[in-house]
Amino acid sequence: MVDYSPALMTDMYEYTMLDATLKDGTANRKCVFEVFTRHLPEGRRYGVVAGTGRILDELERFHLDDEDLKFLADRHVVSPETIKWLENFHFSGSIKGYREGEMFFPNSPILQVEGTFGECTLLETLILSILNYDSAVASAASRMVSAAKDRPCMDMGGRRTNEWAAVAAARAAVVGGFKGTANLLAAQLYGLKAIGTAAHCFTLVHDSEREAFESQIAALGKNTTLLVDTYNIEEAVKTAVEVAGPELGGIRIDSGDLAAMAQRVRNQLDALGATNTTITVTNDLDEYALASLQTAPVDSYGVGTMLVTGSGAPTCAMVYKLTEREGADGTMQPVAKKSKDKATVPGRKLAYRSYEYSLAEAEHVISGSEEKLAGFTPEPEWKNLLVDFVNHGEIDSQWQGHDAIMAAHDYRAKALAELPITAQSLMKGEPVIPTETTVL
Amino acid sequence: MVDYSPALMTDMYEYTMLDATLKDGTANRKCVFEVFTRHLPEGRRYGVVAGTGRILDELERFHLDDEDLKFLADRHVVSPETIKWLENFHFSGSIKGYREGEMFFPNSPILQVEGTFGECTLLETLILSILNYDSAVASAASRMVSAAKDRPCMDMGGRRTNEWAAVAAARAAVVGGFKGTANLLAAQLYGLKAIGTAAHCFTLVHDSEREAFESQIAALGKNTTLLVDTYNIEEAVKTAVEVAGPELGGIRIDSGDLAAMAQRVRNQLDALGATNTTITVTNDLDEYALASLQTAPVDSYGVGTMLVTGSGAPTCAMVYKLTEREGADGTMQPVAKKSKDKATVPGRKLAYRSYEYSLAEAEHVISGSEEKLAGFTPEPEWKNLLVDFVNHGEIDSQWQGHDAIMAAHDYRAKALAELPITAQSLMKGEPVIPTETTVL
Repeated sequence: MVDYSPALMTDMYEYTMLDATLKDGTANRKCVFEVFTRHLPEGRRYGVVAGTGRILDELERFHLDDEDLKFLADRHVVSPETIKWLENFHFSGSIKGYREGEMFFPNSPILQVEGTFGECTLLETLILSILNYDSAVASAASRMVSAAKDRPCMDMGGRRTNEWAAVAAARAAVVGGFKGTANLLAAQLYGLKAIGTAAHCFTLVHDSEREAFESQIAALGKNTTLLVDTYNIEEAVKTAVEVAGPELGGIRIDSGDLAAMAQRVRNQLDALGATNTTITVTNDLDEYALASLQTAPVDSYGVGTMLVTGSGAPTCAMVYKLTEREGADGTMQPVAKKSKDKATVPGRKLAYRSYEYSLAEAEHVISGSEEKLAGFTPEPEWKNLLVDFVNHGEIDSQWQGHDAIMAAHDYRAKALAELPITAQSLMKGEPVIPTETTVL
Repeated sequence: MVDYSPALMTDMYEYTMLDATLKDGTANRKCVFEVFTRHLPEGRRYGVVAGTGRILDELERFHLDDEDLKFLADRHVVSPETIKWLENFHFSGSIKGYREGEMFFPNSPILQVEGTFGECTLLETLILSILNYDSAVASAASRMVSAAKDRPCMDMGGRRTNEWAAVAAARAAVVGGFKGTANLLAAQLYGLKAIGTAAHCFTLVHDSEREAFESQIAALGKNTTLLVDTYNIEEAVKTAVEVAGPELGGIRIDSGDLAAMAQRVRNQLDALGATNTTITVTNDLDEYALASLQTAPVDSYGVGTMLVTGSGAPTCAMVYKLTEREGADGTMQPVAKKSKDKATVPGRKLAYRSYEYSLAEAEHVISGSEEKLAGFTPEPEWKNLLVDFVNHGEIDSQWQGHDAIMAAHDYRAKALAELPITAQSLMKGEPVIPTETTVL
């Protein structure tokens, strides 16, 4: 059972800003906040959006119970009037943005949150935490899946990141193209395929490797995957086939020169008649290691550390910025900060992708006042990148749950195939298509 | 309200190994598992242990409810007999290890878990997730705190990592020497000091910067911290002092050349008579940026991304290895795997630190059978690094909660001061003291 509210997964200033704006009335001003990143991680050609479905899940849980309200009151974070306002908090605004599995680039308006200042400001930290981490994992996963070609990649990284991040990472990995996860809570919450073999301790707790293999096969059947590098790989493979017969499901190698060992073991397995026994390799794999294993006779990959830490880019530098708000006269006005190196483009955005010969050629971000945008007509072949997630507080459930994750998984493959093939290069370089920002 | 069980925050193979060993009887063998890392992140001189208190918290919640058991049964992860065994699962073993805030080095036995194979194996992923992430954050925090000298560092990184990792990071940051956090859930769960200023959107939602400052001061008093870089810093500082008077608490700068701006703003504030108004700077700070700000007139730092991502080392590469287990004859036997580049040292460990002229000179890790270790006498001045956390299922609550975190905070400062001062160098290099492993 998992029961909690994310209402305090916020920076304190969101509540103090709410408090001040409720006092002066600006909390009720209609606002548009947008999530974007100013740059991709160094050398990356594209990013993959992930986490939006989780934002919708958390939005459903976002309410303050008595304990939370008491905490805010006892710590004097907000005034009694604000406590009153928070008692029945329910986000009543609208959210649109890039779907999960969509490619993103610098300044892509990944999420657009529209509502009162008060309700939108409370969501800032939660939205950014989810999108920054999940998209970092999905973006790394996508590169790994490209490097692995048709071989399935499985998430085994839970132990190398925070225990809840592990659950989010498993989900984001599937959005990014992975096929399954070792993490049981992720499998339970999101209906993901769960996978697993055995650890070295399993072999060590038995009096011999043979007894360990016999035990595993007795419990899990011959189709299981045996870990063969606890002592001596060659002997272990021999024992494994003796115990299971040539119908042994698979073996896993977790150390040493993986390509060379896979080749030796493949030949050994074939010589023993175990021609259908698969080989899984694990051990600090990243997209570069996967690319270098392309010619080795490997059937699937278990990826850990480098997946859950975003392969060098553990966050996406996404920010949540106010771009339009109601003025004193009741009309919506584009706004922007002018901070050095961190200035923003005023006004809500439209976002399209244009194509030439079925390949993406540019991201078009169009900004302006509500009425100017209403009068804007995109080129006929441009793809509209913004979809509706929440409409006046009503969540569109098609973007939540297992089916949404699998739809995102499929969508990523399609969207990536529509990018110039340079996107799949592991060489450092510029984003594969430019983002052209137009202020109407 | 936060209610969940971490029992499925595990890799699937932990349950399948449990299942197989319950069938063959080895699940009941007494075992010792140890957590250690083979190496520190590249160039780091030491690491700081964090997360142990959270492991104890999670151990208390570690039970499977009907929904969890049904999931394991429906997915055929384990057999009906194992479901039965899991119904009343309660860890009945013992845990000792390095206290939070303690320095660690390669091969330090950071945690030692003793119990039956079945109960110990289920904890692997959870223990590693917590220690790997929390210690990565505490280790980065400790370097930042050294670089910041006497100026307080505050965690503002929640938005740049998974939403639960953010809560753990806030706690680990305090273990690592930070003074407070922007994260409200961390403040609520662990009694940490919560801090905050205002965001740029707060200024933007108002019709003028002056109105925003007036609103914030009306709500939070003159002792608040005003964000001055939304439009023009010099004008904002002028407005801030006009609105609040010279008793204005502080200002925050979040963009541009922070050292140069802090200097200009300090002079401007002093000229306006606001000599006690503090200056906080934020904006992608890491330990190197903090070191370079030493001569700038800054009073405190808000650190985000680089804190919660471990400043380039988002995980600690800690592993959980079986080092000793009961054999068929009922005696305890040291065990070790021989995997290439990943071999382990057999046997449970003792751990001591030796000193010369009050400075640490070496970490001593002594390994051997139970009886050999019982006969071992350390040098009189060696410090025993292992403390007891759990005794036959009974958790020692002194290691949990707010007081334990503050004790770890103090302990870190003391333990770091006892290391050779090279530990505090930001230059890449070897661990500051060697780990000497002796197998008796």
